[in-house]
Amino acid sequence: MERLTVTLGERSYPITIAAGLFSDSASFGPLKAGDQTMLVTNETLAPLYLDKVRGVLEQAGVKVDSVILPDGEQFKSLAVLDTVFTALLEKPHGRDTTLIALGGGVVGDLTGFAAASYQRGVRFIQVPTTLLSQVDSSVGGKTAVNHPLGKNMIGAFYQPASVVVDLDCLNTLPARELASGLAEVIKYGIILDGEFFNWLEENLDALLALDGEAMAWCIRRCCELKADVVAADERESGLRALLNLGHTFGHAIEAEMGYGNWLHGEAVAAGMVMAARTAQRLGNFSEADVQRIIKLLQRAGLPVTGPKEMSADAYMPHMMRDKKVLAGELRLVLPLAIGKSEMRGGVPHDVVLSAIADCQQA
Amino acid sequence: MERLTVTLGERSYPITIAAGLFSDSASFGPLKAGDQTMLVTNETLAPLYLDKVRGVLEQAGVKVDSVILPDGEQFKSLAVLDTVFTALLEKPHGRDTTLIALGGGVVGDLTGFAAASYQRGVRFIQVPTTLLSQVDSSVGGKTAVNHPLGKNMIGAFYQPASVVVDLDCLNTLPARELASGLAEVIKYGIILDGEFFNWLEENLDALLALDGEAMAWCIRRCCELKADVVAADERESGLRALLNLGHTFGHAIEAEMGYGNWLHGEAVAAGMVMAARTAQRLGNFSEADVQRIIKLLQRAGLPVTGPKEMSADAYMPHMMRDKKVLAGELRLVLPLAIGKSEMRGGVPHDVVLSAIADCQQA
Repeated sequence: MERLTVTLGERSYPITIAAGLFSDSASFGPLKAGDQTMLVTNETLAPLYLDKVRGVLEQAGVKVDSVILPDGEQFKSLAVLDTVFTALLEKPHGRDTTLIALGGGVVGDLTGFAAASYQRGVRFIQVPTTLLSQVDSSVGGKTAVNHPLGKNMIGAFYQPASVVVDLDCLNTLPARELASGLAEVIKYGIILDGEFFNWLEENLDALLALDGEAMAWCIRRCCELKADVVAADERESGLRALLNLGHTFGHAIEAEMGYGNWLHGEAVAAGMVMAARTAQRLGNFSEADVQRIIKLLQRAGLPVTGPKEMSADAYMPHMMRDKKVLAGELRLVLPLAIGKSEMRGGVPHDVVLSAIADCQQA
Repeated sequence: MERLTVTLGERSYPITIAAGLFSDSASFGPLKAGDQTMLVTNETLAPLYLDKVRGVLEQAGVKVDSVILPDGEQFKSLAVLDTVFTALLEKPHGRDTTLIALGGGVVGDLTGFAAASYQRGVRFIQVPTTLLSQVDSSVGGKTAVNHPLGKNMIGAFYQPASVVVDLDCLNTLPARELASGLAEVIKYGIILDGEFFNWLEENLDALLALDGEAMAWCIRRCCELKADVVAADERESGLRALLNLGHTFGHAIEAEMGYGNWLHGEAVAAGMVMAARTAQRLGNFSEADVQRIIKLLQRAGLPVTGPKEMSADAYMPHMMRDKKVLAGELRLVLPLAIGKSEMRGGVPHDVVLSAIADCQQA
């Protein structure tokens, strides 16, 4: 079992990573007999895990209600959020309830924002079931829903009480979702840890084969990197923004193509190549390193070009709504080397447009 | 000019109270030339104040966009909140924008929650235009929208950067709204400050006549009392709950009658009498003090009984969704004397029902 802590003073919380966690009520952090909970999951995961988790919690004396959301990024909306509030109020659940987010990034982000806002804030536990949510979205307290005009535009910084990563969930994860998670894994190597990138080059096949030991270490390393960043900069005034490598481009793809058509990790993969090409055009990043990134993403089964139906010009209106925009100026996370990156403002738009065009499908 | 501070460490902020503040850009706190703002107001207030405030800010070099909401408690909803997000994203506004809430409690609560959630949090300024929002809802960082199943159920604790109280606004306030604000004013006397209650008994006529000096002192005293409570207990783990005197009953009236039919202060006025009657039935509060409360509320033009179409039984389902409910148990703020109150759990429901029945319209 891997165990680490996100260090945030009184709001510090543990991340537990192991197989078989769903079979033990002790996995579910601060919950105790008599607690009231609302388990939020989606229609794909409910048949797989809902009865199991409910069973182990109820056996421990925890009261479990549940709400089952439709599955997909397009449902990470204010309207679906409202159905969670309605479920909570119909019972009703008090300010001492605990929300449990059992699912991927959509369930985790939406449930986290529900917990942040219900009665101005109740406790919640992240139980991420996809690789992407295990290595990224479940850790660090960024919660949100989408707006038709921009991804994650409505949300809160709100930390969970614990994160429970059961590796067994990956056995039921579709290959495309696994690849999407690997995009965020590879991101950590590019922005923060060149040695980890090397390790990924050597161990990607083991990860794709769901080798338990490799996967446990990989998830632990990503969570460690993220926990350190979040502890240093919870509200993204500086360092934390580096975790957005590829996301400004990627969010544009997701919004333009319609949420759910490109998976988040797929859009981020193409976006990271665009960021690398931008850095290369600015003279800060080598062609050899661009190729290392492209090759690793391709081995993971990820796209390295944008959607062919999307022109470079179509990216800009979305990118100008990015949360990193300050005083109307676009700011981008750009790699400086494999393992090192920076936030950069003032990049000429024609350089960005050319870099996007570099990554257009032929 | 009256000026005081809500003391919350790095998030401390000033409250400025005077006539004529809208004529001076210096009133609008930390805003400076070049800042981007979104002024949120409603269709009743826009013709009265929007051009004036926009003009003074634009003259100081502040960029002002605006969004005009429909007027009424029934529009304090997730759907109307979404129109604010859409307005912000259409321009677009970045994370460095400032929202300005120009209006009463509905505009302030909704705009505050929009500021708390837009891009996970942007700056906002409260410019309360009603007595109720000037003495209560604009101070302390409680932001929220309503859910059909409960008032203020979706929100955040999120503090403004400043509060700007222009006394001239009261000149355009309908008499019913003025009375509604006086309900919250009287509340402060009952729960925290017997001397202030005495002062109100002596000066109510001056307040009803909008005497400038009396009104400035009254608003200052209420803001002081509230600022002290908020500084001691920002997230309502104890003391702050006392500010809810009458609100558990009052919210039930508002929800059952349909938001906007009973004004918030009207419902709180009737609710405070119900709380006083509950305390009296428990042997903790005298008939003479109940009568002092009833008399002062009546002089202010406020109801002291519940809606005649609402039976005592109709209150309970609403009251059990109150945010003070813990482990399924109703908790009520009850007066112990004029100027002293307590939070109390375990009050038998039949006592509460009898107290409500005491306050039924004949």
